[in-house]
Amino acid sequence: MSSYGRYNSHSSQSYAPSAPELPPPPSNYTPPNNTSPPSSNYNHPHAYSYGQQVSSSGYGYPPPSSSVSSSGYSNFPPGTNPDVIRSFQMVDRDRSGFIDDRELQQALSSSFHSFNLRTIRLLMFLFKHPHESLRIGPKEFSELWSCLGHWRGIFERYDKDRSGKIDPLELRDALYGIGYAVPASVLQLLLSKYNDGSNYRRVELGFDSFVECGMIIKGLTDKFKDKDKRYSGSATLSYDDFMSMVIPFLVSYD
Amino acid sequence: MSSYGRYNSHSSQSYAPSAPELPPPPSNYTPPNNTSPPSSNYNHPHAYSYGQQVSSSGYGYPPPSSSVSSSGYSNFPPGTNPDVIRSFQMVDRDRSGFIDDRELQQALSSSFHSFNLRTIRLLMFLFKHPHESLRIGPKEFSELWSCLGHWRGIFERYDKDRSGKIDPLELRDALYGIGYAVPASVLQLLLSKYNDGSNYRRVELGFDSFVECGMIIKGLTDKFKDKDKRYSGSATLSYDDFMSMVIPFLVSYD
Repeated sequence: MSSYGRYNSHSSQSYAPSAPELPPPPSNYTPPNNTSPPSSNYNHPHAYSYGQQVSSSGYGYPPPSSSVSSSGYSNFPPGTNPDVIRSFQMVDRDRSGFIDDRELQQALSSSFHSFNLRTIRLLMFLFKHPHESLRIGPKEFSELWSCLGHWRGIFERYDKDRSGKIDPLELRDALYGIGYAVPASVLQLLLSKYNDGSNYRRVELGFDSFVECGMIIKGLTDKFKDKDKRYSGSATLSYDDFMSMVIPFLVSYD
Repeated sequence: MSSYGRYNSHSSQSYAPSAPELPPPPSNYTPPNNTSPPSSNYNHPHAYSYGQQVSSSGYGYPPPSSSVSSSGYSNFPPGTNPDVIRSFQMVDRDRSGFIDDRELQQALSSSFHSFNLRTIRLLMFLFKHPHESLRIGPKEFSELWSCLGHWRGIFERYDKDRSGKIDPLELRDALYGIGYAVPASVLQLLLSKYNDGSNYRRVELGFDSFVECGMIIKGLTDKFKDKDKRYSGSATLSYDDFMSMVIPFLVSYD
């Protein structure tokens, strides 16, 4: 089934395919009963939200702000949860108003997860001001915190067997639930990078890798969608656009 | 300067811009004299080879082969350098005819470089048979060895000050020398991932990161070019194509 066919059979308002055209599970894959969502799940209100605006406090990274946060804690958005401010202050020992990758890792470890540095750097790269070095201020930290809260909610909702791990079907459903109908071939390719490539079906993602996968799928899809104004399922990209869209999601330094 | 303008001003046979339109160095960047190539370098025969076929023994990864290598050393291509065969055999202790990531790391360490595992896994992912797990046989190992030999030659040619490191201008020239005129903004974005993002101009790539950068630029550009048959500098991609082109270059498992 080509993307073209899949996308074109839908209204221009809906980028996500309708339920019957969900990427099928692999033919020889039988999901355990407790991970198979009821079909009504496909009617989740988010499933068709692809084209909607997601607020900057959502599960995606924020658009670049026009100014670099200056030093100081007055830059936390009004109404910021005191826990968020406290977490930032605890790791920003030099009171510079910025935290680096290892400080972010530490700040998140108590409330969220002990993320590995690769995920931390991807998050920082996506949230930091484009012209800023790999560090974030109160505003970006607050947005990142909120974003991770959303992803945690999604993780918990779709980890139906409460295993603390998301399997390939749960990942597919979770992404579908937030409006991303990702072709099976694409998910398989991505998941094959999370084990030795032998069998993507056996991959189980902890929260760390789930966030990484989710940010990659959402980030790349949103960028593609920006270029596909008519929601046709295809887009014309210049070489520069293509490379600039992709590179933020690639390697991070060690 | 938009890509469109740059590409369209050239013949459809040449994807790489002509010399005067090389991505300019940053305005406040003064290259040391010994890294500034003579202008005749831009007439290097490779500089316009963008559209040419590169043999599988070149500096790129091979097209997927139609069959998985079976076990045994008879699968080394005829005429394979005995050093290559010996290196493979030394690490394939169980004589399975396949080596995994850590064995590859070990096999390359004596003749090339002590690559970090991230680069090793990128190389394996690009060279392995698509349906094979993260391991390679004699044929792929031989192709990878040859590819790295090409990249080493390029590294040595463009590391003009023999520092053992490639700086941003040397990288730009090296890529240009093999036919890839990469826009300055794209190179800057990529290089910013190799330090803390503060100043890409200070990035210096060892052979390891040079190979990683080179494989990423070459790999993504070649894939884009496959979709840009007229060498117009832009291509129409389906969402599935886009994601499938990009994912192989993303994260690898830890």
